[in-house]
Amino acid sequence: MSTDATPTYPTSLGTSTAEEIRLLGHDVAHDLMGSVGLGELALWLMTLERPDPSEVRLFEAVLVALADHGFTPTAIAARLTYLSAPDSLQGAVAAGLLGGGSRFLGVTEDCGRWLHAALEERGGDLPEDEDGWDALALAAVRRTREQGRYVPGLGHPVHKVRDPRTAALFRIAEDEGLLGPHLLLFEAVGRVHEQVLGRRLPLNGAGVCGAALADLGVPVDLLRGPALLARAAGLLGQLAEERRRPIGMDAYLAVDRAAVYVDPSA
Amino acid sequence: MSTDATPTYPTSLGTSTAEEIRLLGHDVAHDLMGSVGLGELALWLMTLERPDPSEVRLFEAVLVALADHGFTPTAIAARLTYLSAPDSLQGAVAAGLLGGGSRFLGVTEDCGRWLHAALEERGGDLPEDEDGWDALALAAVRRTREQGRYVPGLGHPVHKVRDPRTAALFRIAEDEGLLGPHLLLFEAVGRVHEQVLGRRLPLNGAGVCGAALADLGVPVDLLRGPALLARAAGLLGQLAEERRRPIGMDAYLAVDRAAVYVDPSA
Amino acid sequence: MSTDATPTYPTSLGTSTAEEIRLLGHDVAHDLMGSVGLGELALWLMTLERPDPSEVRLFEAVLVALADHGFTPTAIAARLTYLSAPDSLQGAVAAGLLGGGSRFLGVTEDCGRWLHAALEERGGDLPEDEDGWDALALAAVRRTREQGRYVPGLGHPVHKVRDPRTAALFRIAEDEGLLGPHLLLFEAVGRVHEQVLGRRLPLNGAGVCGAALADLGVPVDLLRGPALLARAAGLLGQLAEERRRPIGMDAYLAVDRAAVYVDPSA
Amino acid sequence: MSTDATPTYPTSLGTSTAEEIRLLGHDVAHDLMGSVGLGELALWLMTLERPDPSEVRLFEAVLVALADHGFTPTAIAARLTYLSAPDSLQGAVAAGLLGGGSRFLGVTEDCGRWLHAALEERGGDLPEDEDGWDALALAAVRRTREQGRYVPGLGHPVHKVRDPRTAALFRIAEDEGLLGPHLLLFEAVGRVHEQVLGRRLPLNGAGVCGAALADLGVPVDLLRGPALLARAAGLLGQLAEERRRPIGMDAYLAVDRAAVYVDPSA
Repeated sequence: MSTDATPTYPTSLGTSTAEEIRLLGHDVAHDLMGSVGLGELALWLMTLERPDPSEVRLFEAVLVALADHGFTPTAIAARLTYLSAPDSLQGAVAAGLLGGGSRFLGVTEDCGRWLHAALEERGGDLPEDEDGWDALALAAVRRTREQGRYVPGLGHPVHKVRDPRTAALFRIAEDEGLLGPHLLLFEAVGRVHEQVLGRRLPLNGAGVCGAALADLGVPVDLLRGPALLARAAGLLGQLAEERRRPIGMDAYLAVDRAAVYVDPSA
Repeated sequence: MSTDATPTYPTSLGTSTAEEIRLLGHDVAHDLMGSVGLGELALWLMTLERPDPSEVRLFEAVLVALADHGFTPTAIAARLTYLSAPDSLQGAVAAGLLGGGSRFLGVTEDCGRWLHAALEERGGDLPEDEDGWDALALAAVRRTREQGRYVPGLGHPVHKVRDPRTAALFRIAEDEGLLGPHLLLFEAVGRVHEQVLGRRLPLNGAGVCGAALADLGVPVDLLRGPALLARAAGLLGQLAEERRRPIGMDAYLAVDRAAVYVDPSA
Repeated sequence: MSTDATPTYPTSLGTSTAEEIRLLGHDVAHDLMGSVGLGELALWLMTLERPDPSEVRLFEAVLVALADHGFTPTAIAARLTYLSAPDSLQGAVAAGLLGGGSRFLGVTEDCGRWLHAALEERGGDLPEDEDGWDALALAAVRRTREQGRYVPGLGHPVHKVRDPRTAALFRIAEDEGLLGPHLLLFEAVGRVHEQVLGRRLPLNGAGVCGAALADLGVPVDLLRGPALLARAAGLLGQLAEERRRPIGMDAYLAVDRAAVYVDPSA
Repeated sequence: MSTDATPTYPTSLGTSTAEEIRLLGHDVAHDLMGSVGLGELALWLMTLERPDPSEVRLFEAVLVALADHGFTPTAIAARLTYLSAPDSLQGAVAAGLLGGGSRFLGVTEDCGRWLHAALEERGGDLPEDEDGWDALALAAVRRTREQGRYVPGLGHPVHKVRDPRTAALFRIAEDEGLLGPHLLLFEAVGRVHEQVLGRRLPLNGAGVCGAALADLGVPVDLLRGPALLARAAGLLGQLAEERRRPIGMDAYLAVDRAAVYVDPSA
């Protein structure tokens, strides 16, 4: 923007005239409504490339895997917010999404980013066979541990042996011909990490989702995005249930009644 | 909850064991991933009834219609939040959704609620033909105007003659055999309102979406919910674009540089 | 804004030049920092009139009364959000404030608004003595009950006989010569409501805060504002404690472990 | 929490009985309301030590310095959210606070954290005179630059020569006998950085606030907290002004009308 001129604001997304509403250069009413699903549209909006049906199927599978995990901290936070402010559904959804940070929803992002960095370091040249992927994975896991950091996407507090979403997502990706470099590298991490860590951990569902999203072309800085979209759907389910069969008041009272005062100087 | 016992928390949504993750009583990895889309899952979570393919198509069309409308206040708010706090994608999405209130995203809810109330007042007995729907619509529009209130879903600041989404959604609903009472009543409002208001206004897209959602079984208190889900996808598009081709800084500076101090006592 | 000219944006708040930062027309560094407290500044920003020390004392007392009520739903929501996203303190504070809606923080607003409406109906002419205030209160309580609505500010789930904040705030207002029409009318409601409701309820703390804020000139549409500001301070305390002595994980696990699956068709 | 027992939730903050409301072990109605201001309470809640009047004055000066900076991205985001959802004041405040992240409000945290780390590295042993502080500052600035990182708290886009808040805050701290190690080190950074950076930059207001907060005992992980509290007050001023003299619609239309469609494949 030059300071002496009125700025203009470039966009490739929604525009409209009196007659027509366009999105990504397409006529929303004629070309998109009825033909495109929300998942497909979301991926398209993030990558600016229209996904093909295989990519849509893989992407929707990721979204379904991430949508709801029951009484998570974010689901409870959304329900408690709805209890306090039932007039503002958007506030309850927003409160739930605000938990989508480094710790609970962050594994998807961290894992995609870690895989991406490992591939970047190698440049464009990819391994040709399983041994090659294993060697790349082993080097990346070693380097990460030497830096005193965790390898993201390994282990799960509940699914200690195997996370059922992992096999499902690999199978769908394979069916659709979409086993890209991030998924292949993640699979190799599953084979080799025991050599470095000294114990076998399952590849977790959040991690494999990050790998798949990176293969689908979602920019690494936005990997948290699809998790937030998926969670928005899950939160609507949680809030619909809170309306039908509330638990927020009980959950709040259970904490409040078990409060124990501790002297602040203790 | 009895006060002397540990509370339990009933839910029909996500549960998991070491071996399995379930959602709505189905195995997520085997029955849902790869078979169900996010839109379908969201509707199912809100209504607790698995939608059939026709219902999914109509619901996805509503979501696509509501996903992105370009540089809306909520899109700009999300971009400005991302500019200030790029480390927290969830905060930028949440800020955008917080504009999903009475004024901009509210028409969908207001319209569905208005149609629902008009049908409720009549009890279960629905009109049998177009004349019957027209009479019902006319009575409802009259009553609303006599109460000094607006009829929601009529008129649009840009699409002054016709909103292209309206015809598209009616066509899809008709194709799928899903012209339910809310859509039929809304269509009748389109035919008769001129008799009361003295001028012809288009049925707007947000309104027809509210009618369709109500026909799809979304509870009236949650009608804002699908709009929020759709908008979450749109906001990911806006934030992906802000990352690629930012406008937030220019939009902010355009306001800041044109600030004019006014004496507070003026 | 005319469409053919660059808009300008009037403001009486913050402006700055290379040399100086101004707020409300005052030099921030020389006139405000060190002389004005945040409470004083907040009231000034909302009313555009610089409060005198008596008004500041009453306003700060309201803020202190509303800052923290222990393990409220909003405090728990903020802690759960911090647990999930410890990298984003702003998200945890925002999540806590989003519960500041109609149900938990709303009494302050509802009560101030109710008192304001009762005074408005009467016009500028105020009662001259206690009997006059009682008559006005009685009429307003009667009318509200006849409309099937609740009188806000009466009763409290814990403080069933008296809310200790109520007497404290009336005492401070009296000391400072600030018993204005909203507080006087609220006091009269305390004396007369039993005649209509058939039982004696305490004037609650949230209600008396709403009355005091209205007397201090806070616009009725913004009465929720000071409660949000006060709560922001309380939430910082909650989050500081969550950091030192966390309860979020336990509160979450207590819900998750007591989850009981219910068939959705039940 | 043991898994076989009902958990208890320790807290030193708000508790209440039918007769009494306590906060930090004090009777809210008798000991706090009318005696303590919100700023004082906030600092107390974060540090668990009751601040003395000097500390309160310095803390309030920090809050006033950070409360409002006019049409910032966060202020505009809050106004646009209020425009879209005027029914939810809490949503507009929350949206504004969500911009309190790494880029705009983050300098306060970054600077306090940087100073804290430099002092930590040295252990408990502090310099005895200005030369000692200068040596410590010089080493810290050098190390930071060698790591390719910025020294936080230096420079300002508008206040290129001096930030008027900096001198004001140093003066208040000196008046109150509160020039602690973080402020002394920051002052030394101001004297020595030119030797490393090759040009003279002003110590900015956000940075000096971070130094003062660290000296006041605010934990480094919560340094963003007071900035959020201060900003909550500023946002109430922005929203009060948006109600009186709105600019949100014009700001939105100025962007929307200057939108230029760009082919997504470009």
